[in-house]
Amino acid sequence: MPVPGPGYSITVRVEAPPSASAAGDLTTAVGRVGGVLTAFDVVESRADAIVVDITANVSNADHVDDVTKELDALDGVRVRKVSDRTFLMHLGGKLSVSPKVQLRNRDDLSRAYTPGVARVCQAIAANPADARRLTIKRNTVAVVTDGSAVLGLGNIGPAAALPVMEGKAALFKKFADVDAWPVCLDTQDTEEIIKIVKALAPVYAGINLEDIAAPRCFEIEKRLREQLDIPVFHDDQHGTAIVVLAALRNALRVVRKQIEDCKIVVSGAGAAGSAIIRLLQHTKPADIIAADIDGIVHSGRANLDDNLRRLAETTNKDNVSGSLHDALVGADVFIGVSAPNLFGAAQVATMAKDAIVFALANPDPEIDPLEAQKHAAVVATGRSDYPNQINNVLAFPGVFRGLLDAQAHDIDDEMLIAAANAIADVVDDRLNASFIVPSVFDSGVAPAVAEAVKNAARRSAAAGRPATLNRRGARD
Amino acid sequence: MPVPGPGYSITVRVEAPPSASAAGDLTTAVGRVGGVLTAFDVVESRADAIVVDITANVSNADHVDDVTKELDALDGVRVRKVSDRTFLMHLGGKLSVSPKVQLRNRDDLSRAYTPGVARVCQAIAANPADARRLTIKRNTVAVVTDGSAVLGLGNIGPAAALPVMEGKAALFKKFADVDAWPVCLDTQDTEEIIKIVKALAPVYAGINLEDIAAPRCFEIEKRLREQLDIPVFHDDQHGTAIVVLAALRNALRVVRKQIEDCKIVVSGAGAAGSAIIRLLQHTKPADIIAADIDGIVHSGRANLDDNLRRLAETTNKDNVSGSLHDALVGADVFIGVSAPNLFGAAQVATMAKDAIVFALANPDPEIDPLEAQKHAAVVATGRSDYPNQINNVLAFPGVFRGLLDAQAHDIDDEMLIAAANAIADVVDDRLNASFIVPSVFDSGVAPAVAEAVKNAARRSAAAGRPATLNRRGARD
Repeated sequence: MPVPGPGYSITVRVEAPPSASAAGDLTTAVGRVGGVLTAFDVVESRADAIVVDITANVSNADHVDDVTKELDALDGVRVRKVSDRTFLMHLGGKLSVSPKVQLRNRDDLSRAYTPGVARVCQAIAANPADARRLTIKRNTVAVVTDGSAVLGLGNIGPAAALPVMEGKAALFKKFADVDAWPVCLDTQDTEEIIKIVKALAPVYAGINLEDIAAPRCFEIEKRLREQLDIPVFHDDQHGTAIVVLAALRNALRVVRKQIEDCKIVVSGAGAAGSAIIRLLQHTKPADIIAADIDGIVHSGRANLDDNLRRLAETTNKDNVSGSLHDALVGADVFIGVSAPNLFGAAQVATMAKDAIVFALANPDPEIDPLEAQKHAAVVATGRSDYPNQINNVLAFPGVFRGLLDAQAHDIDDEMLIAAANAIADVVDDRLNASFIVPSVFDSGVAPAVAEAVKNAARRSAAAGRPATLNRRGARD
Repeated sequence: MPVPGPGYSITVRVEAPPSASAAGDLTTAVGRVGGVLTAFDVVESRADAIVVDITANVSNADHVDDVTKELDALDGVRVRKVSDRTFLMHLGGKLSVSPKVQLRNRDDLSRAYTPGVARVCQAIAANPADARRLTIKRNTVAVVTDGSAVLGLGNIGPAAALPVMEGKAALFKKFADVDAWPVCLDTQDTEEIIKIVKALAPVYAGINLEDIAAPRCFEIEKRLREQLDIPVFHDDQHGTAIVVLAALRNALRVVRKQIEDCKIVVSGAGAAGSAIIRLLQHTKPADIIAADIDGIVHSGRANLDDNLRRLAETTNKDNVSGSLHDALVGADVFIGVSAPNLFGAAQVATMAKDAIVFALANPDPEIDPLEAQKHAAVVATGRSDYPNQINNVLAFPGVFRGLLDAQAHDIDDEMLIAAANAIADVVDDRLNASFIVPSVFDSGVAPAVAEAVKNAARRSAAAGRPATLNRRGARD
């Protein structure tokens, strides 16, 4: 049973006898079946009874039943209602669209809408670059998914993906004042997705691709980058790669190793793994070994697709074969974006001294971090209930803030590296083995990332890298 | 030169001598060249000079120059800066996307985003109807355009259309608390637009088509209505038709005529004209004559397209031919959604006694309303500077509010008629020849329309009209 967490929090309203021991009996009952009490509120008190709201973190639906039954079984106690706080939070959706202008009277209407708006339209028709000045385009990003690889849930479709995209948009606003809008597409055809995103582009200054299955996501991103004059960023790839690189930079400082001397094992060769490897290659590690469900990726392996072939060609210097466990022997760094429980403390013991283990599979990591700690010097996961949470929220809001502020037409690896360095630098002298990345609530992160990305984007534009032309042939 | 209006309002900052006559000289200068002064603010006052912001409504860009030069020519006066208040209002766009949930700490994050959000996704995957409960779909409408027929500006493209769609979305929120989002498509291919809107549908509970050229708009609306399980409403057609029907109902009360006895002439056979005629036909007027640039639509006319052929078949009982002027002879009602200055007082004189003239072409009507008044009993236009402004803002916010509240899967003519009746009824005992429709700022309009549409939608669903099935085969 998973550890109870705030993602599954219930409030149980009970009627109980007004005895001195009632509170103790109720809270003890919750704890007895493994619920984690987080609040106890008396909502009504009468001579004959009290009504209490008991809020607790639980593990899953069965656990809700356990808690409810345990409370109901207490003498004189009756459960009135069980509310799921997560569902309550999502009722009616998590985003709102509001006017930024006042519409109090006819004069306001004449300026914001007809007839005044016609002149604004004509100005943009005459000079398309003005769209970034006179419309929401300036600050607006599309969060695009086809619902094919949502969280760890797989291909659940566009409607079921919407709560995630809304959450992402909420984070964009919260952390970087970016207006983001969910685009959940009812198609999983590569060519259609490309066509649709191109057609939607006039409203947006950036595209954040999200939860689109590999290998489709590679082709979609590549083609959109070629064809659009706004940056296209697949967060599952590059957001993850940025945060991993930031964490690795700081972890290496903790163990006083240089990346050039390190052998790095990456488990998972899908969207995230491939992007991590590509970004790491800029930092010139001694070697990178990629492994997936079929073991180490090497040039002699059967059935390599385009992506795996490219990985085989650019990693694994000695072209070794074998299992993930084989790869780990002597490795300085393990980075997992793959599957739960792939190895244990015994395999970590075979790694080099002062090993670094990033076990990022969600919700259950490649190795229990408590096991990993037995032999590794630095351990990180994607979970919020261990130290060193490697979370994309550290990257994507600031990345897009920087891209929008620079009015960037594209995004390149130097901007990703600049973002990673900015995240790493925020930690500064707080660095230790349990604090290699800042908290996602550190308000200094997004502005630092934004500044770094903005500057990198301006250098890139100044260096004449391919800033595509807009469709009227003007560089806007 | 058009009449100066608040849609073109400028603020001119001038430095002037601190004489007693300065204010008079400045305001007189503005008036001398036809500017309409709306504000005079002294922003700085020194011993040697005053600095004044003069705000005035003007007609067009040449008129701005006239005003500026006239001020600059005054003795000792120097124009420092001219600001266009309409452009200032549009800077940075007119919409913002905000989280409706708090994201203060890790617990909030665990519920709004991972890991808690996964359970919400799974609930929707298991029961797609839950999307209306647990996501923004419940309250969200797409405002879709291809930029092919924007206001009176024609085919200016999707980027230049965005300020209008933003304005529309702002009005949706202001008047009916609907979250509306601009979708400006960089394609004008009918099949592509249909495909794209279908693919976008998971996020929306309604589609508002906007400023799409005829005849493409007919096909797009028809096909989307067949294929989507959410209502599709082309505002240029049905929004206009609703408000016209509301205004006509009240105008007929003013002149004490029954629609069954009336001959109605409709000038313009595009999107708006065709939709007006179709809705009017439900009210069984004595006859409707449609006219366009080629004169009266009749079955013998050459080159009739599908739309005109349908009009020829269902209007013009006696199959007369001739010009618009011919059609007007003996007509009780003129409804124009066509082009400026098509006729004068002389033609109105040929209409039946107590004629009704709705000259709705924007920005310049089919006949100057002052001319029309000479012989007509009731005159209305689309302009805000005459009485009886026939404006779609009276309809679309309430219509979608009602559709969303009813969780409607489609929209039919009975809902449009219910909306028209609701608008007409708001006028109540305030009715007279100069007040046949309520003000767009009458806060009673949208709720009344919403209630009427909601009830009609529920009757329609109860009557078993084609509520389409969603793609998992469940009626949601």
